[in-house]
Amino acid sequence: MAEPFESYLQQHRSRHLEELFELLRFPSISALSAHRQDVWNCAEYLVRQLEAIGFEHATVMPTHGHPVVYADWLHAPDAPTALVYGHYDVQPVDPVEKWQSPPFEPEIRDGKVYARGASDDKGPTFMHLKAFETLLRTQGTLPVNVKFCIEGEEEIGSAHLEEFLEAHREQFQADIVVISDTTMVGPGQPAVCYGLRGLAGLQIDVQGAKSDLHSGLYGGAAPNAAAALVELLSSMHKPDGSVAVEGFYDDVQPLSDEERRAFAAIGMSDDAFAQSIGVQDLPGEPGYTAIERVFARPTLEINGIYGGFQGEGLKTIIPCEAHAKITCRLVPNQDPKRIQDLIEAHVRKHRPRGVTVTVTKMDTGRPYVTPFHHPAIQWAARAYEKAYGTHAAFIRMGGSIPIVEVFDRLLRAPVVMMGFSLNDENFHAPNEHFSLDNFDKGLRTLCHYWLGLPAALASASDA
Amino acid sequence: MAEPFESYLQQHRSRHLEELFELLRFPSISALSAHRQDVWNCAEYLVRQLEAIGFEHATVMPTHGHPVVYADWLHAPDAPTALVYGHYDVQPVDPVEKWQSPPFEPEIRDGKVYARGASDDKGPTFMHLKAFETLLRTQGTLPVNVKFCIEGEEEIGSAHLEEFLEAHREQFQADIVVISDTTMVGPGQPAVCYGLRGLAGLQIDVQGAKSDLHSGLYGGAAPNAAAALVELLSSMHKPDGSVAVEGFYDDVQPLSDEERRAFAAIGMSDDAFAQSIGVQDLPGEPGYTAIERVFARPTLEINGIYGGFQGEGLKTIIPCEAHAKITCRLVPNQDPKRIQDLIEAHVRKHRPRGVTVTVTKMDTGRPYVTPFHHPAIQWAARAYEKAYGTHAAFIRMGGSIPIVEVFDRLLRAPVVMMGFSLNDENFHAPNEHFSLDNFDKGLRTLCHYWLGLPAALASASDA
Repeated sequence: MAEPFESYLQQHRSRHLEELFELLRFPSISALSAHRQDVWNCAEYLVRQLEAIGFEHATVMPTHGHPVVYADWLHAPDAPTALVYGHYDVQPVDPVEKWQSPPFEPEIRDGKVYARGASDDKGPTFMHLKAFETLLRTQGTLPVNVKFCIEGEEEIGSAHLEEFLEAHREQFQADIVVISDTTMVGPGQPAVCYGLRGLAGLQIDVQGAKSDLHSGLYGGAAPNAAAALVELLSSMHKPDGSVAVEGFYDDVQPLSDEERRAFAAIGMSDDAFAQSIGVQDLPGEPGYTAIERVFARPTLEINGIYGGFQGEGLKTIIPCEAHAKITCRLVPNQDPKRIQDLIEAHVRKHRPRGVTVTVTKMDTGRPYVTPFHHPAIQWAARAYEKAYGTHAAFIRMGGSIPIVEVFDRLLRAPVVMMGFSLNDENFHAPNEHFSLDNFDKGLRTLCHYWLGLPAALASASDA
Repeated sequence: MAEPFESYLQQHRSRHLEELFELLRFPSISALSAHRQDVWNCAEYLVRQLEAIGFEHATVMPTHGHPVVYADWLHAPDAPTALVYGHYDVQPVDPVEKWQSPPFEPEIRDGKVYARGASDDKGPTFMHLKAFETLLRTQGTLPVNVKFCIEGEEEIGSAHLEEFLEAHREQFQADIVVISDTTMVGPGQPAVCYGLRGLAGLQIDVQGAKSDLHSGLYGGAAPNAAAALVELLSSMHKPDGSVAVEGFYDDVQPLSDEERRAFAAIGMSDDAFAQSIGVQDLPGEPGYTAIERVFARPTLEINGIYGGFQGEGLKTIIPCEAHAKITCRLVPNQDPKRIQDLIEAHVRKHRPRGVTVTVTKMDTGRPYVTPFHHPAIQWAARAYEKAYGTHAAFIRMGGSIPIVEVFDRLLRAPVVMMGFSLNDENFHAPNEHFSLDNFDKGLRTLCHYWLGLPAALASASDA
């Protein structure tokens, strides 16, 4: 027998899409101050939507940056409370000439909605609103208490969200946090994400002589800042590809056999991984598959190097300065600030002769893993399976969403990451799009999830 | 008893300087096509000067680039023939606002002539004209046969001179070549340069994935082009600072004890060298002083590196490409093309996993050493000593003047490098200047040199 929400979703599909299109039309680009009012207007649109659905206390809450949208429905006294997080801000649209249709004029082509924010993250966030609408209209009530926290600064690093949540901790308190801002394994292959890597950024500046020198008059005797940087950076990896910084792996939580089996089940071979990025071979830490390295092993990456002459032809100088940008992706239980300290100590120890080296510590974010067996996580996989008719993978993601760890730390609530986006949907690029198949199946997944969550949590606590 | 040329030089000094100023007023910048006519006009001025002095066949000879000025005086039938090489083209003057007086309006301040080209190389070249004028006016004849080859493309790599000399080999044939385009050790410290390093340039391009990748989604598994470049470049030096490319030192002519003593006599300590460029320590090949490394040891220098993000802050990408510019300075008997081949082989052998590496071979120039004991070289030191009243050093220079080796190869004539410029005279920079003390003493040095050269050569061949 079909669930009652099925027919409601079918009946109201075109209105739901129309309303999503209205949301997508706001050019809510958080990075550009010219769009400040658009960001605010978009927040107000969400408040009107939430009120129309039946949420209470729906408000545009100011922060020191762009506002947060809050709303709640708290009429399930014995049921758990879920905080749903999402973001309504979007990336810039440059280069706009590469878009086949204008980024803020949504258009359906080939079963996909094309618009900036369709996949990241207006589409998935809006699905939560429509899932609750569906449950309220078909059941007259919700199986859980719900609070919304929809921010406007995710694309600029959630700069003010932590201080905002600290100031309103009581209001946002919940038993679990649900986020739909991660990706599936592939089309028709849903995935629960239960871990994210952390981040530690550094800049390294090498200074040699007081100015660039003529390589004829000084070459062989004067220190070369580019060569010194190369020597220093090369000391940070071992020949086998692992990181050579002393203590780097000390706090790394080993990958369990169960996780390795779960990652293997995704069925992405190293060859397929290499092919997908157009290379013949994958260097890196030995003993792990590519997927394991991305999901659950830390890495030290050079994001940029520069120094000396970059023009056409040759210029026979000895560069007096050279620079590198480095970010580490970290896994539990690595501490980003400790990792920065270890790298700084490594630089001090390996400083090449004849130059001075400055280390500047930059952005950090903590790694995060939800306990693999948490019932709210396990139940998410079951909900996917009901809607998609297939096994859901348990994955970790190599990226960093620092706010996830903040939720965990401030609210002491597990974070359930149920994504509906695909890796090739061009978020942060021209022609961003979102699959209507995942819009439809995702709505059903969410209805199943909320309907079954109280029982799943209860049976787990009984056991 | 004073030589008769002394009083002539004193008597005509102000006219000589006025004529030098006329030469310096031509903005003969070879690199800028807008100055093509100025370059030609400057060549014509030299022809008029040479004719007025008494040279014959004075001509502006077209090449495939800027013209060469030729003139000769061949009325000393039993004496050797000397070819005097110099250049009348100059470097650009940017940034022009940093000049205290306009670059093409010569001005004397503090006993120095300030103007573009004053030191490099109009001043020293013009001194040769005035020395021969002095000898002709005071003696009625010259002690040697003389040919002039004054080119207009030295500052742009003497692009067309080799093919020009090949085409006119007969006309330019000589027994020795004399060039005044090198530097002295310091004020009052003349130096005969008897060796120049050669050059071998390469560009290295590393390509990883087909585009930059998100360091979260791929970091740890995907090849990083910047890290691969760093690994590759660091393999080119040993920890002790010597070059690790196999075969690099195979053909290097060892430094003789006599040369080491001569270099030590210059009195430039490693500490003083380090202090002059503002560093604490001098890395590089062990077992040699800084001066020895610059004069007579080969080096492999990174002139520039670039790849990935260079802006403010962080961008969490894995760069898909990275690049390096490399030049080697070479010493006898290294062959620049063989060195390029060795580096290419090194790159092939050490190519990091997961990336492709392209090596592009660029400019080359052969190293050059005049036999240390050649009488034309030894006599140059004696001539300096007569004019400066002090010992002249025998030095090699770390820089490359590829045309020197071409003269040696095409004309099979030794090249005598007697410079009158100082290292701090800002050639290639704003406020170029030339010391009047060296103008005066240099003219006397040249008169002594030409007057005594036939006897010096004859006594050497007798011995």
